[in-house]
Amino acid sequence: MFRDIKAIAFDADDTLWVNEPFFRKAEQEFCKLMEDYLPEAESNRLLFEMEMQNLPLYGYGIKPFTLSLIEAAIKYSEGRVSIAAIDELIERGKAMLNEPVEVLEGIEETLKQLNGDYELVMATKGDLLDQERKLIKSGLEPYFHHIEIVSDKTEKQYSKLVKHLDIKPEQFLMVGNSVKSDILPVLNIGAHAFHIPFHTTWEHELVKEPVEHPRFRLLSSATEMIDILKS
Amino acid sequence: MFRDIKAIAFDADDTLWVNEPFFRKAEQEFCKLMEDYLPEAESNRLLFEMEMQNLPLYGYGIKPFTLSLIEAAIKYSEGRVSIAAIDELIERGKAMLNEPVEVLEGIEETLKQLNGDYELVMATKGDLLDQERKLIKSGLEPYFHHIEIVSDKTEKQYSKLVKHLDIKPEQFLMVGNSVKSDILPVLNIGAHAFHIPFHTTWEHELVKEPVEHPRFRLLSSATEMIDILKS
Repeated sequence: MFRDIKAIAFDADDTLWVNEPFFRKAEQEFCKLMEDYLPEAESNRLLFEMEMQNLPLYGYGIKPFTLSLIEAAIKYSEGRVSIAAIDELIERGKAMLNEPVEVLEGIEETLKQLNGDYELVMATKGDLLDQERKLIKSGLEPYFHHIEIVSDKTEKQYSKLVKHLDIKPEQFLMVGNSVKSDILPVLNIGAHAFHIPFHTTWEHELVKEPVEHPRFRLLSSATEMIDILKS
Repeated sequence: MFRDIKAIAFDADDTLWVNEPFFRKAEQEFCKLMEDYLPEAESNRLLFEMEMQNLPLYGYGIKPFTLSLIEAAIKYSEGRVSIAAIDELIERGKAMLNEPVEVLEGIEETLKQLNGDYELVMATKGDLLDQERKLIKSGLEPYFHHIEIVSDKTEKQYSKLVKHLDIKPEQFLMVGNSVKSDILPVLNIGAHAFHIPFHTTWEHELVKEPVEHPRFRLLSSATEMIDILKS
């Protein structure tokens, strides 16, 4: 089933390294900042609403998140939030961009084993500069042929990526933690997809139904890929 | 001299379409917003300083610019700027992302003529989502094979781009309005570069010395490319 695979694309955030917990922490701080104006659950919900509203215009990543934090703070405090609080949000965004990179278990071992037999690329909808920085900090750069940045992980974007790699969909495998972004659109274009769940998933990426498909595997660790691909 | 060229990369902002004047306008509005705290020339200088300071962390584009506007407004008013003013800066950033796209004279004609004989790509250090949106709005999408996003236009990044296009440097031509970003690093890696100046250039991109090089041409309009490449 997996013998034809030539190129493997890895999602970056929460697949190669820890990411989502930094956003969770920033959301908690946002709720604390807003506690004079709104109950915590309400702040969380309204922030998510603001992010979803801005997503088509801003796209994904820490800079859009920071701009949404500021806009939400102003809007949902009805302009009563302090300038010092806005300054704090700017600093929080910068701190997120400077977070150390924690590579997930089994990733380096897996990349080392697959390197040479497959063209390995990193496929992310994040921000190029930020993802390049994390790739360098992670020490994983030598394993990857290049970074593929997509504005969204849709069937159309995956078809472009496969065409760009100059292979057929059945020669492409995507590995990631989001069923919505890394699995379903990939299976739909006739390619393979391995899901490695991460303990925290952004609400926007949640898909409830389990996946059953001959070109799909659910893994508990990246290292399981090695045996599956070799068999 | 130009007979071996196989792929032509076009810079996007101020080469394919108008961009810099939107930033100039936003800077003027920022100075007006700050007039209670600083003289205009001083606001302009400090904003540029803030942008340069944030550039390594934020990269290029409208979202980094918006975040720098907010940070500069807070810092240089010593926290006295109003929340309403911050809200205005957020809205100004959004308005910039929504600006209509004005294609520069001669561009469509040039792309039409070159299409088919060369692989045409768009090479930009802007934000992928924003540049994709502008490419679609411009109506120029059908002429381009794909978009190449680079985090910065350095020799290293151009070498990666040329490798990625699977050609040699002498088969690559870059066309753009910035001597610093689109011309000098390209000539340095052994590729060709055509400069089409735009009436306004961001201070960060300014290079004073004129370029003299056998693989270089200075054009007054994109359409001049057609004759040069055919001769």
